[in-house]
This record gives sequence, structure tokens and C-alpha cells, in this order.
Amino acid sequence: MTEPLWKGRFGQGPSEALKGLSNSLPFDMRLWEQDIASTRAHARALLGAGVLDESEVAKIGRALDEAAALFEADSFDFDPSDEDIHSAIERFLITALGDTGAKIHAGRSRNDLVVTDLRLWLKATLPRIARRIHELQEALYRQAREHGTILMPGYTHLQRAQPVVLAHHLLAHAFALCRDFERIIGAYRRADVSSLGAAAFAGTTLGTDAKATALELGFGKVFDNSADAVAARDFALEFLAAAAILGVQLSRIAEELVLWTTAEFGFATLDDAYSTGSSIMPQKKNPDVGELVRSKSARLTANLVHLLGVMKGLPLSYNRDLQEDKEPVFDTADTLEATLLALCGAIQTLVFDSERMRSAVQESDSGATDLAEALVVAGIPFRQAHEAIGKLVAKMQPSGKRLRDATAQDLSECHPKLDPSMLALMDPETAVARHNSHGGPAPDRVDEQFARLEILLDDEERWLAGFGAY
Amino acid sequence: MTEPLWKGRFGQGPSEALKGLSNSLPFDMRLWEQDIASTRAHARALLGAGVLDESEVAKIGRALDEAAALFEADSFDFDPSDEDIHSAIERFLITALGDTGAKIHAGRSRNDLVVTDLRLWLKATLPRIARRIHELQEALYRQAREHGTILMPGYTHLQRAQPVVLAHHLLAHAFALCRDFERIIGAYRRADVSSLGAAAFAGTTLGTDAKATALELGFGKVFDNSADAVAARDFALEFLAAAAILGVQLSRIAEELVLWTTAEFGFATLDDAYSTGSSIMPQKKNPDVGELVRSKSARLTANLVHLLGVMKGLPLSYNRDLQEDKEPVFDTADTLEATLLALCGAIQTLVFDSERMRSAVQESDSGATDLAEALVVAGIPFRQAHEAIGKLVAKMQPSGKRLRDATAQDLSECHPKLDPSMLALMDPETAVARHNSHGGPAPDRVDEQFARLEILLDDEERWLAGFGAY
Amino acid sequence: MTEPLWKGRFGQGPSEALKGLSNSLPFDMRLWEQDIASTRAHARALLGAGVLDESEVAKIGRALDEAAALFEADSFDFDPSDEDIHSAIERFLITALGDTGAKIHAGRSRNDLVVTDLRLWLKATLPRIARRIHELQEALYRQAREHGTILMPGYTHLQRAQPVVLAHHLLAHAFALCRDFERIIGAYRRADVSSLGAAAFAGTTLGTDAKATALELGFGKVFDNSADAVAARDFALEFLAAAAILGVQLSRIAEELVLWTTAEFGFATLDDAYSTGSSIMPQKKNPDVGELVRSKSARLTANLVHLLGVMKGLPLSYNRDLQEDKEPVFDTADTLEATLLALCGAIQTLVFDSERMRSAVQESDSGATDLAEALVVAGIPFRQAHEAIGKLVAKMQPSGKRLRDATAQDLSECHPKLDPSMLALMDPETAVARHNSHGGPAPDRVDEQFARLEILLDDEERWLAGFGAY
Amino acid sequence: MTEPLWKGRFGQGPSEALKGLSNSLPFDMRLWEQDIASTRAHARALLGAGVLDESEVAKIGRALDEAAALFEADSFDFDPSDEDIHSAIERFLITALGDTGAKIHAGRSRNDLVVTDLRLWLKATLPRIARRIHELQEALYRQAREHGTILMPGYTHLQRAQPVVLAHHLLAHAFALCRDFERIIGAYRRADVSSLGAAAFAGTTLGTDAKATALELGFGKVFDNSADAVAARDFALEFLAAAAILGVQLSRIAEELVLWTTAEFGFATLDDAYSTGSSIMPQKKNPDVGELVRSKSARLTANLVHLLGVMKGLPLSYNRDLQEDKEPVFDTADTLEATLLALCGAIQTLVFDSERMRSAVQESDSGATDLAEALVVAGIPFRQAHEAIGKLVAKMQPSGKRLRDATAQDLSECHPKLDPSMLALMDPETAVARHNSHGGPAPDRVDEQFARLEILLDDEERWLAGFGAY
Repeated sequence: MTEPLWKGRFGQGPSEALKGLSNSLPFDMRLWEQDIASTRAHARALLGAGVLDESEVAKIGRALDEAAALFEADSFDFDPSDEDIHSAIERFLITALGDTGAKIHAGRSRNDLVVTDLRLWLKATLPRIARRIHELQEALYRQAREHGTILMPGYTHLQRAQPVVLAHHLLAHAFALCRDFERIIGAYRRADVSSLGAAAFAGTTLGTDAKATALELGFGKVFDNSADAVAARDFALEFLAAAAILGVQLSRIAEELVLWTTAEFGFATLDDAYSTGSSIMPQKKNPDVGELVRSKSARLTANLVHLLGVMKGLPLSYNRDLQEDKEPVFDTADTLEATLLALCGAIQTLVFDSERMRSAVQESDSGATDLAEALVVAGIPFRQAHEAIGKLVAKMQPSGKRLRDATAQDLSECHPKLDPSMLALMDPETAVARHNSHGGPAPDRVDEQFARLEILLDDEERWLAGFGAY
Repeated sequence: MTEPLWKGRFGQGPSEALKGLSNSLPFDMRLWEQDIASTRAHARALLGAGVLDESEVAKIGRALDEAAALFEADSFDFDPSDEDIHSAIERFLITALGDTGAKIHAGRSRNDLVVTDLRLWLKATLPRIARRIHELQEALYRQAREHGTILMPGYTHLQRAQPVVLAHHLLAHAFALCRDFERIIGAYRRADVSSLGAAAFAGTTLGTDAKATALELGFGKVFDNSADAVAARDFALEFLAAAAILGVQLSRIAEELVLWTTAEFGFATLDDAYSTGSSIMPQKKNPDVGELVRSKSARLTANLVHLLGVMKGLPLSYNRDLQEDKEPVFDTADTLEATLLALCGAIQTLVFDSERMRSAVQESDSGATDLAEALVVAGIPFRQAHEAIGKLVAKMQPSGKRLRDATAQDLSECHPKLDPSMLALMDPETAVARHNSHGGPAPDRVDEQFARLEILLDDEERWLAGFGAY
Repeated sequence: MTEPLWKGRFGQGPSEALKGLSNSLPFDMRLWEQDIASTRAHARALLGAGVLDESEVAKIGRALDEAAALFEADSFDFDPSDEDIHSAIERFLITALGDTGAKIHAGRSRNDLVVTDLRLWLKATLPRIARRIHELQEALYRQAREHGTILMPGYTHLQRAQPVVLAHHLLAHAFALCRDFERIIGAYRRADVSSLGAAAFAGTTLGTDAKATALELGFGKVFDNSADAVAARDFALEFLAAAAILGVQLSRIAEELVLWTTAEFGFATLDDAYSTGSSIMPQKKNPDVGELVRSKSARLTANLVHLLGVMKGLPLSYNRDLQEDKEPVFDTADTLEATLLALCGAIQTLVFDSERMRSAVQESDSGATDLAEALVVAGIPFRQAHEAIGKLVAKMQPSGKRLRDATAQDLSECHPKLDPSMLALMDPETAVARHNSHGGPAPDRVDEQFARLEILLDDEERWLAGFGAY
Repeated sequence: MTEPLWKGRFGQGPSEALKGLSNSLPFDMRLWEQDIASTRAHARALLGAGVLDESEVAKIGRALDEAAALFEADSFDFDPSDEDIHSAIERFLITALGDTGAKIHAGRSRNDLVVTDLRLWLKATLPRIARRIHELQEALYRQAREHGTILMPGYTHLQRAQPVVLAHHLLAHAFALCRDFERIIGAYRRADVSSLGAAAFAGTTLGTDAKATALELGFGKVFDNSADAVAARDFALEFLAAAAILGVQLSRIAEELVLWTTAEFGFATLDDAYSTGSSIMPQKKNPDVGELVRSKSARLTANLVHLLGVMKGLPLSYNRDLQEDKEPVFDTADTLEATLLALCGAIQTLVFDSERMRSAVQESDSGATDLAEALVVAGIPFRQAHEAIGKLVAKMQPSGKRLRDATAQDLSECHPKLDPSMLALMDPETAVARHNSHGGPAPDRVDEQFARLEILLDDEERWLAGFGAY
């Protein structure tokens, strides 16, 4: 058999050039497990409709078991005529079972099959990605728990701004990841809808029961409209979008890995297992993990752009453009898994240099705002207080001095209410402790954040628990 | 006052070149209403913290009323020193109230203010967009109700494939829009979090209560971590992503407007109010509405790409790159509102040509699958049935004949079980009625779809009702 | 040997998680031929610098021949320690030649090697793509030559607008492709610069001669600055951009294949070799080739977005993010080759239906502008003429009549100068012949366009001739 | 006059909703100067064709002068019926001149007019952008000339790698910008083609001479095919692509501004005129210029994605989607001008801290490769030399020592040929001087680079000189 399954009306088969463009087997082969599951469920639907009998369904089941074993063993024999995984498995059944196999495609089409397979694949994959996000959050949480009291400069514009503690910084990332987790759940919900039974797009006359099929495949919902069922890919777009947004978040953590491990910052050292060397420079220890994670953000964005562009302006119902849905989806999932795993390991094994972090705080004027706020407490309008401290900075800096070095005269020249006792507020520990507004870096506030994060992580675990031991 | 509010430590003001790049007033001006609300809430926070007294808060309230009136009347006087809407309103308060005005910025920063304003703006805007989606769904629903029994060819690959009814086709789009509505709700949830009180990123020492402020501003949640509060824009990205996916869906409807109003299809006519003419060709009636909606899909994708690219690799916490968040968000919202409104009007007033649609069905062999399925019912394996009908097509087509024109001999030559009585199955009404699987085009199934859509639309209305008369 | 080449200073090797992210061998393996060429040239550079002697260079040359033979035969043995093609080939030399092999990496780095290999690869690939563009232009040219006199409606807004001939339409695409060809040449020029000898980014102390190496590798230029040499990827971006723009052009041709082969248009039939069938609907003949080419435009855009995003904000010089440059480049090149080949074949074998095309002209009022222009010639201001003909259209259309059916009274009611003799101008052949302005569809003008295109195609051939029998 | 110019055949005007979507005046207003030029040239074409006489052309010329004066003074009165700048100017002529004005649109269409205007606009704008690139290159050149001998660490992976001089680093950026300049020239060439005279897409019967019009408008070429003339936007895409690639390059310089002005690097200080302060933190001096330039790279990418997406899959010839071409083009040009100006100013006024830069070199082991190369010169295979120095690093680092602190015993333990005299090679000045391979940082090599850059800058100036005093 070396001709396509639809050869009936055609004088000749497709040209090599067309095959080169249209053969999707190299990438959709990956859906073999889902296609077998869908086929198995469809066989039961045909049983219900009287197209197959029990013994035929049993034979098909056994042949599918055999196919699965071959795929598992990486020894399934593809035929040059196989255009995709769907036709390959149908061809396998026909070869194995003759007429019984030739019955399997009744009441279904590749149009409903391919999208059902992709939905099943996402249902298997999204919880695994969610778990990886969760593990990264746990890694951040644990580092925050263990080393969270280290003083460090908080940054705005990459300039030292106000002192915080490491826990406050790490928890910011962990909380952000909670929203990424939520978006993965959203994408899961929209993926969890069976399309099988929509056939080409208009259903079938054979009396199969799409709702029973959905149930059997473990879907939470069944399609509402058969044309929508085969034409829509918004569920895939939603996954790609959630992934692109998550990728941005990961790239931000990655950027800090790169920065913090520079000689200039020196805040942290990557474990050797998460570093690489140079082929020419023997002294180099490079933060490739950070750079690679950072770059993957662009890849995830590109995969989203890819499918958004494909879908634009397509009329109903199925169009062959939809073949392009799988590669971005697979690549995004693979990229996320590899990225999350590597970043998680890098965070787990990261060693912080508390001395360098603390001294970075000391070498800055990051208590300036607190000094201005002290003036506010003394009744000075903030805008005047801000200007007064700004002048003090302008006074001290040229001679390389810090605000804490200001003399009583320096202070009073900038504002009469500024007095040397206020300088104590700029002691980093004091400053952090006084930043005790909601969500801030003061110890009590950080404790609240730990408690809050624990609740959110617990919620995530409950959701994940629904998927067993992925 | 022509100097920036932060002039204290600087020898000179910013260059014109830098101002040209950094002045955001032309676009963030649009947040005046939100900035006044945030400022009002912050004044109350300062009252709670003892930085302002009741009379000062009252004065600030009145000045803000005055500013609001000026903005409403489009007569607020901006100053060359105003860098953005936030500094403009603070400057207005200082000019109006002197020291009292100069107190307002205590315990807050533009970092927390700008993101809170943007969140408030999205909270006001997203329900309006959701309502427009809902209206479009209603327009599709009503056309489907009124003209839904018109027979038409369903398409795959833009080739006539199987007959359906217009309702089935229109409902496919309406159901797809339900998922877009859901994603807007998701984006709303992530936007509905106050960031005010995070100050620069590390909170404040002044004792303001961020939770109270969130409540006062009507937010459903308050930030968990102050650095995350000012650094995160995932909520904006989620909106842009939902919008880009929605834009794709709208472009698909738009494409069909363009196709259906061609001379070649002739399925529908746009109302003159939704058509345009040519500056040179007097006979032209152009479906610009479809073309413009289609093109906007690319714009919505671009806005998402814009902000994803901006955010990539930014370290904590605030970076000035974040100034680029507003333009894509505003443009996407404006684009969606204009697009949804115009598309809704075009659909509402679209006139279908039932004759052309029906004759398009007649001129096709779109009952071929039903013939194959009839063979399946007669016990022929589907793959053989498919091939037999394929041969029949190959036999009839060269002489310009349809399948229904097949003689008994034509039929039996292709398959012994094919018989002339089966040709009746290809009568379009019969064919549609027999496509009675779940979600299909048969009358009962379409009725089910109407009922299901009514439930979903009702759910949407309940959600929308929470936002009053947007 | 299972450790990376840079293991010296490291306590342990990279984790599996990091390897999973950083191993580029699966895709950069494809650069084996270029890496062997670069390595060969570098060996000669080391000879010139006195690091290798003639016999060592000869041994290296033979070992590289052996490696090449293994790669050709797909039997090169990779080692688990191979991180990329560069380290694999170096490892091969070390294994084969011991100390002599261990000398090869002196004075070079993967940083300069990888970018040189990629440049060599583009130099081999771009002419091949250019040739495919050229072949597509030739296919359009030939169809235009053979069937160019077929009358057809020209379209604006996908509405029939004015009559043209098929040649005019096809030549529009051919001329557009000339600019795509030019952009590929531009990308070639920027790729044609050797980077070898820049080493890590700061050159070397060993006295190798980068200019000689460039010459030996056949590059047109050598880098100007060694940091720029390893850091820049604008040449790759330029290729991806040219490809994305080309992809848009191809998608436009593809869209017309899809439209023209619909039942509704019926202007053309795809050869069976460029069509596909349906797995469920036996009558279907689908224009997958058009749909797939159309969708690839989104893929090409995505590849460009990918690398633009990767490069954004990278400081000098080499960063590991640059590993992400190869996959979009390879994928874009592969996509273009497959797309151009298939589209070219589809065009070459496309069969036009001159009857359907001509009757589409007849069923339209596409001569309306000519009628208006006739009034202009009679001295009527165009804007009034346009309005008069517009009225005539409005008068005729409701009763399903064409402009050519207008009676003398119909005409005079719309404008006193309109007279029945003018209706002859709307005869399609007449109309086309009268559209004899520069670049228009009149026969002489089309002849001029053929002549002009021949010159441009000849220029292309001259450029291509420089690359031999690709 | 409150109806569109094409009202003839329509029962009613467009709805507000459609107008909201289709009115392009707010952005295409900006083409007034080009539209007046095109209209003037078209009037002469109509003179040549006998549609206008000399006195009419003169009247039109004067009315256009008047319109130009009104636009200059920002006091042109738009009418609610004006759909775009083209209809506004035609309406102005009709109002001013009656029948004479009503003649102007003969033989042209908005389709050819709009694209000609956009091409003229690009022809005026691209040299201005090119000049800004050139100025930035000059700023880099001058800083390199004045402070180029400052020693600094070169970086790979943002880790200190090998010592270079500031000139070498700055020239890397200047050379990269040469390619951006070349791409702008390429975009200019493709823009420099007149489309006027293509009319709707099929030319005209009136006998106007498109080649004369092209000449009069100063275009270098005229369109080859009238359908291609109105349908193509590849010239705009090419500009957007060149701009996006340039934006990436600017973002890389910008990233270094951000990094170098951190407390941690401390390599440079921005002039106060190119810095901004914080609204809350009085001590802050922020590198907003770097951050904003960096973020604009994403915007430029987005504008390209926008138009690529719009163009995908559009059939010939004009489609209304093309209305979306102008906003990305205008925004990209504005963004580039503002970005280049600000970045140029920031570079011109940047103050380097040579002490910090030099001490960063001293605190690193960036001479390690030179040590390995010294072993190579002593006959040791590079791979062994690399490993030996790697071991030396591993030996010294844990005790916080540098390679230069190695004792004779340390050295010999790592490799018998390592000897203390070699340590002198790691002196930064020595190291830089020894990196004298082509394009490297050694003084002679940097001098060569200055000379080469001068030639390239001179070539740019010659090109720019063709456009006068932009």
C-alpha cells in the first residue's frame, strides 16, 4: 500500500514537492498514544452505532495494543504512504485486520481526530508543566526560607534603591509564578473538550454518540457545535499565550542569575552543575543557564506569533493551514519543561554571598527615602522633604561621601528639621524593619508572605493531585 | 514650575532629546480619571497614617474635583514640566493647595501609582469589551434564529464539503466567542488587584494601610508582595493575549464577510451602512468592514508582541521600560471596541441570499460522504466505501455531471451495493436532517445548540450585570 | 572521554537539566560540512603562525576527510560529551591524532567558529533559495506567455473591479518576486564576511592571519572588529526578514490558488499531483498546497520574531543566548525551499478555465470606470462623471441588469452626455485594449512587461551563475 | 458636502460604527505634503492627456499652495465627510475651484495615490533616519578617539573575559551600525518607485504618462505593472525590518548604558541632561534613556509583525487591509528618530570612569587565555594548555587569589612548562598589545579600525549629501 487513503477520485498521487510540504508524520508521530486512545474510543462509538460488533472491537483493541507496543519499542514500521500518524495507524489496522480495520474511519475524519489527539496531548502535558512551575516556586520558597534574612539592595532601574531582604526579593518571583500557574489551569480548561464525533465538521449519519466518546476519553466537556469543533484552535493559542507570559517571567529570574553572578554584582555563585566553561578561556565560569532561559522567552513568543498568524482570517471550517498548530505547541511544551527544570535546579543550588549583598547596601544611599519620610513625620510636606534630601545627596556625592556621613551642619543646611539622630534610620536592618507596610520587607510582613504563599502552593498541590503522579 | 518634581539632586533638567523619548503625557493623560481616584484613596491612606488631617483631605478632595471638572471639559492646563499624568495632577495639587498638595506623594511612588491606575482602567474597560463580544454573539444568534434554516454548503479547504444550514454555521462562531468571553473574565481577575501602597517597591515607613486603599478603590484583591506589585505586568499581557486570540476569531468572521459578498459566492449583501464605495470605480460596493476587521487581528497580535518583548529579561523591580505598557493596552482596547461594534453592525444588517446558498449546495457533490455512509450501513467497510464513491466522482466529473445524475449502471460499476435509491440521501434537506449526531446541523441538533447558547449567554449577562450599565 | 572540553576548572560536569537545555548538537550537527571547512582553514592559519607544521596540517586534513566521509555516510559516532558539532569534530581530531588534534583549537574559540560556520552555511543556502524564487518567476512567466490573453476580472477588495488579462495578473506576482530576489542578494552580502580569527572576541596572540583565512574560505570580506565579529547576528536577522517578506508574497499567490480553485470562482484547477483528497469525503479535491504555503508565512514571521527577541538587549560580546540563532535560520531556509518548490510545481501545472474567467467579466459592471472616463473625455469633470455612473449602477442593479443593458433613456436620465455608443467601451476586449497606460493590461503594455521581466530574470541568472550548479 | 465622494450608487452613507473603524484621517493627515505633491504632478499628467488645460493646472497649483499654507499653519478645515487626507484635499479643490477641482481625480485612484504618498514620505524620512544613525556612529567614534585607551574588561556571558580597550568596544558598535545604514539604503531603493498612474490597479484610458509623473516627483523608478503598483507593500516591510534590526542594535548599546551606570559596574556616568530622578527616592539617578531605548526595540519588532500579519494572504490587488500600513511605518520612523537622538546625546555626554574600568580588569583572571597561548608557543597542544590553566584557576580561586599571584610551585604543579616569567603576559597593557591579530584590541589594530571606519563614515556622508541639509 503506497497510495494515500483518499486516492479514489485521483488520477495520480501527490508530487514529491507537495509531500515535502504536507507530510506531517515527522512531528505528529508524537501523538501516537493519543491517536490510539481516540481510535479505541471511536471503535466503541461504532459499536454503539452498530457499525462494528463486539468481536471486531476486540480485534481492533488488540491490534491497537500491538501498535502501542511497537511505538513504545520505537519499532513501528511506517509506510511511505503514511501522511500522518492518523493514516499510519489506520493503515496498520487495515493491514492487520483487513475489512475490520477498513471500517474504523467510518463516522470520523482526520479533522476531528487530529484536534482531539492534540487536546488529549495537552491534557497530559499541562499538568506536567504546572508541576514544574510549582517546583520552581518551591525552590524559591526554600531559598527564601533558608537565606531570606540576608540584606540586599532592592533595585529600580537597576540602581540600588532601598534595602530589602533576600526573602522579599525571591518571594516576588514566587508570587508572580502563582498567576502563571492559574493561566495554565485556564488553558487546561479550554483544552478539556472532546472534538471526536464532529467528523469532517458536520457530524455523521451513522448514529455514533459523541458524548459517550468524550466520557470514555476522560474529557470534562464535549463540543457544542461540530463545525466549531474542528475549526477552533483557541485552546492551543491560549496555552501558547500562557506559556509566552510564563516565559517572560522566567526570563526575568534568568536575567538576575546572569547579573548576580557577574564579578561586578557577585551576589551569588552557580553550582558547577549549573555552569559551563569556555572552549578557549580557561578561567571562565559562565551562567549559560540564565542566558538560555532568557533566550527561550523569545522562542515562546515566536511560537505564539506563529499560530496566531496561521489562524488569522481562516474561514470555517477545517483548512489545511491548521496542520501548523502542532509544531509550536510541541516546541513550547518541550521548551517550558527543559527551561523550568534547569532554572529550578539552578535556583535550588544557588549559593548567595551575604557579605557582598550587605556591603552593596552599605555602599549606597538607599535609605534616602526613609530620611525624607522622617521629615514627613516631622510635618514637612513630602515634596519639600524629597527636595531637601535630594540636595543633601548632591552635597555629599561629589566628595564620595554617603548620606550617613553627613555632619549636623550638612544636614541643617539642607533642611532645618534634619538632624543627626535621623541618620540612624538609614541603618539597613532598621530601615528594613521600618518598611512594615503591607507586602513589604519587614520581618513580620515577610512572615505573612510566607504564610500566604504556603496557602497558594497548597491550592496548587490540590489541583495537581487530580492528575496523579505525573 | 518648569522643573521635574525630582530635581533636587540634579544640576540641570533633562535634555529635549530625553524628554522627547520619556514624556508619556500624550498617552497616559488618558488615565486622569484613574489617577484622581487613586490619589483620593491615597489621601485617605495618609489620613489613616496621620500624615494628613481631615481638613487637608477635604481640600485635596475638592481640588481633585476641580481637576476632574477641568479634564471633563478638556481644559486642564498642562505645564511643560509635566512628565506624565501623575506628575501633572500632583503639580496641580501643589499649585492649588501649596504645602497640603506637597504632602500627597508621601508614602507612594509613581511606580505603584501608574500600575494601579492601569489596573483601574482595565477594570473599567474589560466589561465594556465583554459586552461588545456579547452583543456580537447576540447578533449571530438572532440571524441564526431568523434565517437559520437556509441551506448552504459547509466548507473545508474552502471547497464545498457537506450541506449544512446557516444556523449551524453562525452558531459555530457564537460558541467560539464564548471562550473569548471567558478569557476576558480571566484577564479581569488578574487585573483586579490593587498595587497602591507598594510605593517604590519596598513599601513605606509611614504606616499607610494598603488593604484599606484596595477596598476603597473597589479592588477584589491587594498585592501580596510590594516588589511584585510594581514589577509585574502579566495582567496586561494576559489582556493583550486574550485580545489577540479574540482578534483571530473576529478575523475569521470577517474573512467570511469578504468571501460571502463576492460576486462569486454571492451569499450575502452588506447593508449600505456597512459598505463603502470606490473613489474611481462607480460600480463598486466594497466590504471594507470585513477587510478592516481582518487586518486588525495583526494589530492585536503586534500589541501583544510589543509588550512581551518589552518585559523580556527585566530584572526586579521597576524599570523604565515599563512605560511602554500603556500604548499597546490602550490601542488594543480601542481597536477591539471599534472592531466589535462595526462587525456587530455588519452582522446585524447582513442580508442573505438563500437562493444562491441553496444552489451552491445543488451544484456540488457534497452528499458524497452520506453515500459512503449508506454503504457502511449496508455493511461495506468505510475505506472501501470511500474508494467506491471516489471512483464514482472520478467517473461523473469529467462529463460535468453530479453524483445525483448517476445511472444505475454508473453506480453498480463503482460498487455492487450502490443503488439508485441511495441517491435520494443526497437531497440536501434529507442530508442535513440525517446529520443528526451531537452538535450537527440536523434541526433537532441545532435546536439543542440554540438552547445551550442561551444558557451561556445568560451566564455572560449575569457576569456583565455586576458592572452596571456600561 | 565523557567530559566537556572545558572541564579544567570545574569540580563536576553539567547537570542533566542543564545539558537538556544547552545541548545544541541535534540541530547544529547540520553544520558539519562548514565546521570541517572552517577547521581546515584554521589549520592553515596555525601553520602560518607556526603552531602547526606541514605534516600536522596534512594529518588534520586527512582526519577531516575521514570525518566528512563519516558524516556523508551518516555514521559519524557522537560521544555523550559532545556539546555541539564544534566540540564533536575537535574531539574526533583529538581521538584520531592525539596531540596534533589537541592543537587545533589554539587561537580560535567556539564564538568565532560558530558564527563563521553559520555564515558559510548561509552562503551555500541563499543562492539555492534565490534559484527557487527564480524558478517560480519563470513558472509565472511561462503561464503568462501561454495563457496570458485570457480575459479575467481584476479585483479590488475581492470585488470584480476592472477587466484585465491573465498575463497582467501573473506578471504582477513575478515583478514582486524580483524585489524578494534583491533582498536575498542583500542578505547574502551581509552574510559574506568571515568571522574566523576573532577568537573569543579579542583576537589572539598567536599570530594567525584572519584575512588569509577569509580568502581561503571564499568569503568576500573579513570582519572589521573582533568583538563585533562574534556578537553580531544582524546578517541572520536580515535573512530572516527577507524570508518573512518573501513568505508574505508567497502567501498572496497561495491565497489566490485557494480562491481560484473554489467552486465559486472556478478559474483554475490544480493538477492532481498538487491536490489532496479527504479522509472522509470522497468527492473532495483540496488545494492543500495553497493552504500550506499560506500558513508558512506565519512560520517565517515567527522565526524572525524569535531571533529579534533573542538579540534584544544583549551586551557585548558573545552571550549564550546566541545559541538560539540557528534553529530559526535553518527552519526558515527549509521552509522556503519546500514552499517555493511546491508552489512552483502547482503554478507550472495549473490549468485555467478561460470560459469561467471570461464569464466572470461579463457578469460584472467592471467597465463602469471606462464609462466615467468617456464622460471625462467629453469634458465632464471626473467627480460628476463618477457620480453619474454611480447613479446608473443604482438604477440598473435592483432589477438585476448590467450597465451594458442600459437604454438610451436610462443613460440620459443619469447624465445628458451619456449615450448608447459609449456602452461599446465596456466590451471587455475593448476595455482592456484601452487600458494602455504604462504598466497596464493592454496588449502592448503587457508586451513591454514581458520584455522588462526578461531583463530582470536575466540579471538574476547572471547573479546565480556565480554559484555554479546549485 | 458631508457625503463621501463615492456616494453615487449608495442609498445611505456609512454608519458611525464603520466610520469609527475606517476613518484614517487622524493618522494619514500627516501625508498632506506628499498628497499635495502627488496631486500637483497628477494635474500635469492630466494636462498632458488633455483633460486639464494650462489655466486649470495653474488654478489647481494655486489652490494647492493655499492648502499647503493652511496645513503649515495648522488651520486646514477638515470636513466631517473627509475620510482621509486624499479625499480632504480633493474636497478642498472642489470647494475652491468647482468643476476644475472636480476633474482632478480623473485617471487616478486612492489606490495609487496612497501608496505614492507613502513612498514619497519614506523618501523624505529615510535619509533623516540614516543621518541620525551616522551621528550616533560619530558619537561612538569620538568617544573612542578621546577615551579609547582606557583599559577595560571585555565580556562574554557578562563575565569578564579578556582585557580590551574602550575604543575596541565602542568601535564594535560603530561598525555594526554601518550595516544598519546599508539596510536603510536598501529600503530607500525599494521605496524609490512611483506608483502614480496605476489608478485603481489597471491603469487608465485617459492617456496620462506615468513615467513623466515619476520623473516630476523625483522618483528613481516607475512601477512595472499597475496591479503590483497598488498591491505591494514590501517596500514598507523592508523599512520596518531594517528598523527592527537597527532597534536590536540600539537596544544592545542601551543595555550597556544601563549596566555601566550601575553602582556595581560603575564604568560610566550619564550626564544629568540624560538622566532622570525618582518621584519618591531622592538619591536616585536613573538611566531611563537606556531603558527606554531598550524597550523601543520591542516596539519596532511589533510594528514589523503588525504589517507582516496584515499583508499575509491578501489576494491582488488593493484590499482595504492596506490601510493598516501607515501607522506602523509612521510609528517606527518616529520611534527611531527619538531613540537615535536621545541615545546619541547620551553617548556624546557619557563620562567614563577609567579607574573603575582598569580595576575591573585587575580583579579578574582575564589573562588566562594568554597564559594558555604562551604554553602553546612553548609547544604544548592547546587543549592541554587550556586544561592546565583551568587547573591553576581551580587552585587559586578558593583562596581568593588571582592567577598573577601564583607561585612558581603553583605553576609547575599545573604544568611543568608554566613558569613565573609568563605571568607578566597577563599585565593588562601587555595583554592588550599582544592581542594584535586582525580586528583585535592592540593599538595598531585599533588604529586600523579607526581608519577603516573613517572610510565607511565618509561613504555614508556621500550618500547623505545627495539629500541636502536634512
